[in-house]
Amino acid sequence: MSHPLRLGIAGLGTVGAGVVKIVRQKAALLAERAGREVQITAVSARNRDKDRGVSLTDYAWEDDPVALATRDDVDVYIELVGGSDGPAKASVEAALKAGKDVVTANKALLAHHGQELAELAEANGAVLRFEAAVAGGIPIIKALTESLAGNEVQRVMGVMNGTCNYILTRMEDGGLTYDEAFAEADGLGYLEADPNLDVGGIDAGHKLSLLAAIAFGTQVNFDAVELEGIGKITIEDIRQACDMGYKIKLLGVSRMTGRGLEQTMTPCLVPASSPLGQLVGGTNMVVVEGDQVGQIVMRGAGAGEGPTASAVMGDVMDIARGLRVSTFGQAASSLKPATPAQSTMPAPYYLRMGLVDKPGALAKIATALGEAGVSINRMRQYDHVEGAAPVLIVTHKTTRAALETALRGMSATGVVVAEPVALRIENV
Amino acid sequence: MSHPLRLGIAGLGTVGAGVVKIVRQKAALLAERAGREVQITAVSARNRDKDRGVSLTDYAWEDDPVALATRDDVDVYIELVGGSDGPAKASVEAALKAGKDVVTANKALLAHHGQELAELAEANGAVLRFEAAVAGGIPIIKALTESLAGNEVQRVMGVMNGTCNYILTRMEDGGLTYDEAFAEADGLGYLEADPNLDVGGIDAGHKLSLLAAIAFGTQVNFDAVELEGIGKITIEDIRQACDMGYKIKLLGVSRMTGRGLEQTMTPCLVPASSPLGQLVGGTNMVVVEGDQVGQIVMRGAGAGEGPTASAVMGDVMDIARGLRVSTFGQAASSLKPATPAQSTMPAPYYLRMGLVDKPGALAKIATALGEAGVSINRMRQYDHVEGAAPVLIVTHKTTRAALETALRGMSATGVVVAEPVALRIENV
Repeated sequence: MSHPLRLGIAGLGTVGAGVVKIVRQKAALLAERAGREVQITAVSARNRDKDRGVSLTDYAWEDDPVALATRDDVDVYIELVGGSDGPAKASVEAALKAGKDVVTANKALLAHHGQELAELAEANGAVLRFEAAVAGGIPIIKALTESLAGNEVQRVMGVMNGTCNYILTRMEDGGLTYDEAFAEADGLGYLEADPNLDVGGIDAGHKLSLLAAIAFGTQVNFDAVELEGIGKITIEDIRQACDMGYKIKLLGVSRMTGRGLEQTMTPCLVPASSPLGQLVGGTNMVVVEGDQVGQIVMRGAGAGEGPTASAVMGDVMDIARGLRVSTFGQAASSLKPATPAQSTMPAPYYLRMGLVDKPGALAKIATALGEAGVSINRMRQYDHVEGAAPVLIVTHKTTRAALETALRGMSATGVVVAEPVALRIENV
Repeated sequence: MSHPLRLGIAGLGTVGAGVVKIVRQKAALLAERAGREVQITAVSARNRDKDRGVSLTDYAWEDDPVALATRDDVDVYIELVGGSDGPAKASVEAALKAGKDVVTANKALLAHHGQELAELAEANGAVLRFEAAVAGGIPIIKALTESLAGNEVQRVMGVMNGTCNYILTRMEDGGLTYDEAFAEADGLGYLEADPNLDVGGIDAGHKLSLLAAIAFGTQVNFDAVELEGIGKITIEDIRQACDMGYKIKLLGVSRMTGRGLEQTMTPCLVPASSPLGQLVGGTNMVVVEGDQVGQIVMRGAGAGEGPTASAVMGDVMDIARGLRVSTFGQAASSLKPATPAQSTMPAPYYLRMGLVDKPGALAKIATALGEAGVSINRMRQYDHVEGAAPVLIVTHKTTRAALETALRGMSATGVVVAEPVALRIENV
């Protein structure tokens, strides 16, 4: 048996405490599986005196994560501090520079600084792993990086923010408005301190940018993710989608096209009978399509103490067993810049708008669509509500660019009340 | 970059040819991801002259897989010959004894000889990997062995024979009898040469025994798998199950209990709304429940050239990257004997039988159940068909032992026509 693997853990919130519990309570099992002992030597958090439901007296204490990350008796630095910069970034950099392996659950850190950190890890012969940063307990990073290494990935998709899926599910099954469902999620403690991270799609967008980097061998480019939150979705949209055999999901989609890398994290319609369409509540799902493997679907808890700590421990056990894979599955220097391609792939779209009560209004809309080359698959107009007639349109396949031309054209007619809602229909 | 990894492939059927194609067509991608070249040096098959749609002229040819497995210019022996003994076993043993790493898709070989092969690998410092042996392209072996290494697994389940699921799906959606659906599957080439491997549950049982070994740290014990095929399932069973909100699946379930290891591969009722219940056609699904991660569901193609070759390549790429994990996730010597525990966990059961047309027949059945301590949740009797009255019973939770006492008691009454069908209802 090799010498024990010594962990230093910074950040002792729910996940950090969960990791401590696993290492303490499953010491024999971990040693049997890793072929060596796994120990904690030192920990760090903001408040030393808080009761975390687990004893920390066996471990050295550091107030400063950077000091923890560089201790001689730490082999693996586990960063659970959070935040894209500040102590999280400083401590991860310090650990990598000291040649320590790093395990993190920090999607924001990697989405913003993934490339430079991967390069830093490589330059120092260190390993940087982040299974827990994407879709909680679902082992998607490992599946994509390792299991599917013989595939050219064609598309990667995911519902990766449980809070958004919870809100959309409650709007559907509870008949709540967006505001009511949002308030319910807030009351249950599901929302981040800045709720826009969840409902604005930022958190899920961070995750998508990491999956895209591995899937397509590109440098992480979160800034190029086309982001749209779920705040504009109404019960009416959800009901109409249901009627037509679809569900609305905050769906991340990334694919490589001849014109560059597509990354969208937007509300989409997906077939109700598909695995993504059947996903309800706070659960996450990731779908990968490879040229060899076909479609692989993975489903599981996207957050929470146990699932996230499980993912952290999967990375720790890999390091204990000697697995040393590059951060994004290939040498950092070989990752190509990710030229963004904004939704070049034609798709059908769902449009909702209100029309003014004037003769010829619908004709003007139809004309604007036709002039942009967007053809109509289905259209429904309803009785007037508060002075506007709700109109729903499902288009045939069209490009985002043509659709935007059509939307501008529709806006210029002066018959559209408020901004139309346009949701892509993703064939999954 | 390290020296190239040199592969020797024995067995050039669909999967073998698929692996050759990937290595040839994706050489640059594989090298970038592995950090070294991956090459084929030699191949072997029964018929040298067959056209396999891919050129083999660059590779040395061996008629004998054992000779291939021990060549000096082979680092990894890929066994795609098939069969639990004969050339497959001989060549894998020869490779391991020569210190070669081995990748195989052979579930029968590992189900029957997994423990001795794992010991042989360990004794010779070799790695033996078999992702492709279970559930085709779904990366379940890696997920269980590596990603979930911080979990105590509570239950592992799976629909892992696509042919059986295809037959059951066609009975349901096409209204076919079992014999008609079987003939259709046969016509499509879905059945093994010995169809009992599929419809008798043997193939799926092999796979379950491998998952159980990893999940529970036990020696593979295929002989202890409680096996039952799908041949007794009727359209009526499928319709009744649907009516009650269930689907019938050939479901593998394994859990560790205080009394030993449970392994069952039997037709079961699962909730229609669960991921397993929603699985249709030839697709596979594996569900793992861990104490930390909760429930993880993985779905994908269980067979076919691309998916199986993808799994083989995942193992090859791991070896290329230097990952060396024990065959079943821990030292072979530390795997505990798997004491079989036959279905000790109480479960509800679905029973179907025909009763003779005599007064008091139903009362006798109900009494037999009551005397065995099995209580009835729902019961339906239908009008007589060919002299027997079909009776359907759903029991409350009961043990398999109590149920078998009840079945014997029912049989002793003399009012039951033919052997009753008893299917467990698995809560998933």
